[in-house]
Amino acid sequence: MAPMPTEPPLPGSHDSDDLNRRRTAEPMLRPPHDFSRYYSCATRRRVASSVKDFYKYFAIPGIHNLAGGLPHVSYFPFDSLEATVALPNRIPKDGFVPQPQPTASPASPPASQRVVVPKESSVDDGLRRIDLATALQYGAVDGYPPLRSFIRQFVRENLHPHVPYEGGPEVILTCGATDGFSKTIEAFTNVWDENRDWIRERQGLLCEEFAYMTAIQTARPRGLNIVPVAVDSQGMKVEGERGLADVLDNWDFSRGQRPHLMYTVTIGQNPTGAVLPLERRRQIYKLCQRYDIIIIEDDPYWHLQYPSAKQNALRQGQSDSSPHTPFSVHDEPSGFPFLDSLVKSYLSIDTAGRVVRLDTFSKIIAPGCRLGWLTAQPDIVERILRISETSTQQPSGFVQSMVAKLIMGDQADDMVKKPCTEGSPGWRVDGWVRWLEGLRGGYEKRMQTMCTILEEGRFSIVQGDALSNDSNLDEWQVVDNVQMFDFDWPGAGMFVWVKFCLETHPLWSQVPAAKLANALWKYLINAPYRVIVGPGWLFAPTEDVKKYAWRYMRLCFAPVDEGAVATSSHNFIEGCRSFWQVKDIHDIDDLEDDNEE
Amino acid sequence: MAPMPTEPPLPGSHDSDDLNRRRTAEPMLRPPHDFSRYYSCATRRRVASSVKDFYKYFAIPGIHNLAGGLPHVSYFPFDSLEATVALPNRIPKDGFVPQPQPTASPASPPASQRVVVPKESSVDDGLRRIDLATALQYGAVDGYPPLRSFIRQFVRENLHPHVPYEGGPEVILTCGATDGFSKTIEAFTNVWDENRDWIRERQGLLCEEFAYMTAIQTARPRGLNIVPVAVDSQGMKVEGERGLADVLDNWDFSRGQRPHLMYTVTIGQNPTGAVLPLERRRQIYKLCQRYDIIIIEDDPYWHLQYPSAKQNALRQGQSDSSPHTPFSVHDEPSGFPFLDSLVKSYLSIDTAGRVVRLDTFSKIIAPGCRLGWLTAQPDIVERILRISETSTQQPSGFVQSMVAKLIMGDQADDMVKKPCTEGSPGWRVDGWVRWLEGLRGGYEKRMQTMCTILEEGRFSIVQGDALSNDSNLDEWQVVDNVQMFDFDWPGAGMFVWVKFCLETHPLWSQVPAAKLANALWKYLINAPYRVIVGPGWLFAPTEDVKKYAWRYMRLCFAPVDEGAVATSSHNFIEGCRSFWQVKDIHDIDDLEDDNEE
Repeated sequence: MAPMPTEPPLPGSHDSDDLNRRRTAEPMLRPPHDFSRYYSCATRRRVASSVKDFYKYFAIPGIHNLAGGLPHVSYFPFDSLEATVALPNRIPKDGFVPQPQPTASPASPPASQRVVVPKESSVDDGLRRIDLATALQYGAVDGYPPLRSFIRQFVRENLHPHVPYEGGPEVILTCGATDGFSKTIEAFTNVWDENRDWIRERQGLLCEEFAYMTAIQTARPRGLNIVPVAVDSQGMKVEGERGLADVLDNWDFSRGQRPHLMYTVTIGQNPTGAVLPLERRRQIYKLCQRYDIIIIEDDPYWHLQYPSAKQNALRQGQSDSSPHTPFSVHDEPSGFPFLDSLVKSYLSIDTAGRVVRLDTFSKIIAPGCRLGWLTAQPDIVERILRISETSTQQPSGFVQSMVAKLIMGDQADDMVKKPCTEGSPGWRVDGWVRWLEGLRGGYEKRMQTMCTILEEGRFSIVQGDALSNDSNLDEWQVVDNVQMFDFDWPGAGMFVWVKFCLETHPLWSQVPAAKLANALWKYLINAPYRVIVGPGWLFAPTEDVKKYAWRYMRLCFAPVDEGAVATSSHNFIEGCRSFWQVKDIHDIDDLEDDNEE
Repeated sequence: MAPMPTEPPLPGSHDSDDLNRRRTAEPMLRPPHDFSRYYSCATRRRVASSVKDFYKYFAIPGIHNLAGGLPHVSYFPFDSLEATVALPNRIPKDGFVPQPQPTASPASPPASQRVVVPKESSVDDGLRRIDLATALQYGAVDGYPPLRSFIRQFVRENLHPHVPYEGGPEVILTCGATDGFSKTIEAFTNVWDENRDWIRERQGLLCEEFAYMTAIQTARPRGLNIVPVAVDSQGMKVEGERGLADVLDNWDFSRGQRPHLMYTVTIGQNPTGAVLPLERRRQIYKLCQRYDIIIIEDDPYWHLQYPSAKQNALRQGQSDSSPHTPFSVHDEPSGFPFLDSLVKSYLSIDTAGRVVRLDTFSKIIAPGCRLGWLTAQPDIVERILRISETSTQQPSGFVQSMVAKLIMGDQADDMVKKPCTEGSPGWRVDGWVRWLEGLRGGYEKRMQTMCTILEEGRFSIVQGDALSNDSNLDEWQVVDNVQMFDFDWPGAGMFVWVKFCLETHPLWSQVPAAKLANALWKYLINAPYRVIVGPGWLFAPTEDVKKYAWRYMRLCFAPVDEGAVATSSHNFIEGCRSFWQVKDIHDIDDLEDDNEE
């Protein structure tokens, strides 16, 4: 436990010349604002390690370095790391039925290549050298230099090419978005203790009305005031009751400070699946400027924006959303139509440098990577780096070197220039983009399968053989053709957010709504339906929201085998239809008492 | 960013039966104490995720799980992970000159074996199944079940078999010891803000007088009062001025609360190399009981305890240490003489459950693993798990699965029972222990090489051709045969802590001591010596200690090629000798101004 990290590459040392030239041609750009007033007490106190002063000496040719507390590379028991990895085109753009993988066999499935990380590479350039001698040693806290350099360039040139502040954003690798969020919250909030502190010192966090609960559970123990903002099918609302303007304009200071932080999932929002269009981003950003709010944009699903969503939304009668254009294009083509088709990040309109963006490899490669990156103005990234130095240090070298090899291949030197041809190692930028398109295609197909069945089945009408044998036709008359639930086709992501019309249920007037909803949830689990979904209350960030969250359930189509999506969706419909025929209140009570049938 | 972790194995589900039977045969054991009064405000507020309530439903055979937000396994681009790894006996027990690794070549060096993590294993038992489908998916926050289960068993049965509280300790994997320490500090301390809080609310952290600075830098930004305790060649002192009893008995409450936390590196202490013997542990533990202090024992070098250290200490005239017996044995043989030879952890006398022990793979496998484990009583481990849920989640599945395969091999089922034979995959317990012995042998050889040269060269006498050409014999008379420095042979670890006798330097009376020491440090870097060492102030946890830390330098022999240890050590001696001949004060001033020659 005595790291002596090698010097992280200087910000912009690799590719900044080109960018800076381009940027200096844009004279309106100003430096990002100084948000240090928002740094937490502990974050303010962090100082750069004094070890850094030594790096210049470490670089002296022939120096005998007895200063660093590093183990000897020859004592690393790993001589090489290798992998069989997918070629970028493994998943067709229009969706894919994945072949079953050979079980416990090292035989290569189709469209794969070999990746090897040797013990020592002969490459001198630290931005191109990928080997175990460097990846498994103490290293740069902001990320393994080749990988960070690649991602930084991808972020600045391909993903967010026109961030409107001087110098553009900086990038630091994280141990996943949850780690990135945790550090951001640590950087920007003080713990509030009701037994010690004045209410006027309590800080707040804005979030969507229904939210990703791990984020909320990160913030809540710090005593932050969790402040939900109403959402619709386009994400966070600006106008209307409990919209962002309402919340901020009419802030009740008896609850604490007006929030200076916002947590938001803008693409394929979890759980609602909403995509926040650019125009609404502008409105929200404007409010954040007025009230001086830092925006934490967490976008694990940014690459899963479904082209079919817009036409689906228009075709789908029941959507209450106004016509929207989530799929805008960059100001100039990036060379990648896929990237151009994506809704721009908040970063694209971030003139002040008030956006901290979280990305993750969890939905691009695999959650077990525990690898992601954080993008923000350099000063904020520097504070996150200070926090990382005394907590996670660097992400694991095993995943960093393997992902670096997967993406950069053996030709890290010119990875951006050369096209990715079959068999040549390394995805490079075009391969990475192609991989994302395949993922989008695969998940979109699942989404369409599920949503088509849900849309067709959302009424309680039972046709032909779908009518179960024990149903009673007299009862049937009562519930004939009422709507059981409604939903918007998700614009992106992995979730369908189903809103139940429980008032059409025969027992609506006899059973409290939350109890009825819970009974439905358990009814679906029972045979023969055997479907478990996420109950709405699981996504309620506050007790107030929990009071009406019973109305919702979240269905995730992502982990289901493609062939099983239809079966699961049909079972869900059949379960709902059967539940709508329950008219004996005792059956509800039985479900309530039932832990598991 | 929507984890739905699989259920962590219940504590003790794997091997607790045997242990519990054994434990119930020890009637004196009492449950660990409740230290929840020390939990920080935020740690107190943490609640278990309500998602856990669903796990029982997930296990229903044939359930259609639409609740979890997981990506589909077929979309992980890694089809297999493979590695060439060392056999446990690669490094001879008595030290080793490592063969140069083939550069950038996948050819296997000697004493290696292949390790393969397939995409999907056919093994059903989650404690034996090692594959990418599980390792790269969202998983158990306390660690990949097969690996955590193995480590837990190793900890409870081999490393610390008789922890004297009921039920014994629990284990959670961390992203390295720095991560484990950060979470422990988060669990047990509140941030103190001098602008907001009373001095009586300020908490403190005891540590060694010279300490590992990353740990101090973790604690200091939280406003903790860093309280150094005097050390000698056996580690933290109990008696005497600034010894632990002195610090605690005479606590000055105007500085804040009496510390309730201690951070200590007890084996091969960084930077002093001290080994804390069992008897002194008992004295310190007793004081910690009296003053109700939690002990955070960070032991990255526990396996590097050098058998030669005791005889070296006795032989070495200049050691001021009283005869000590750092190498005690367990109450009953463990079956592994190596493990029996190690000084027992604080855990071995921890009747109250007040010890939190940090271990890491950084010095066992490689620092880039970012993998370690934390051992403590179950309630404390549960709080650390809650903190991990909203920060790092699990360590990377890449390193967890590879280390699991390295240690457990393909026969995870009976890994403890079978001996590790040449060529059969998996180190298992005996291979792991053998690997540790090899590491100890390799580093011990380096330590002996360096210390022998330092011991022989610690006087300024120059013999024969070692006398540099430009030295003046008149000057030489002045400094003839004075002692330049002193040191104790390290009992363990990677460091030699050199104490300079600057009062023997010709310019002692003319140059302030700290300036003279800094000049020496820079002098050593210059040609022809070219040696950089860690200056003492780098390990000073407070400004008070910094005032006399100039007297010390830390030399680390670990990262140096074995063949280069002698050269580096000789250069150090030659540099010192030459510096002791500097008698012109202007030469010192020149060094002071000099950034790099």
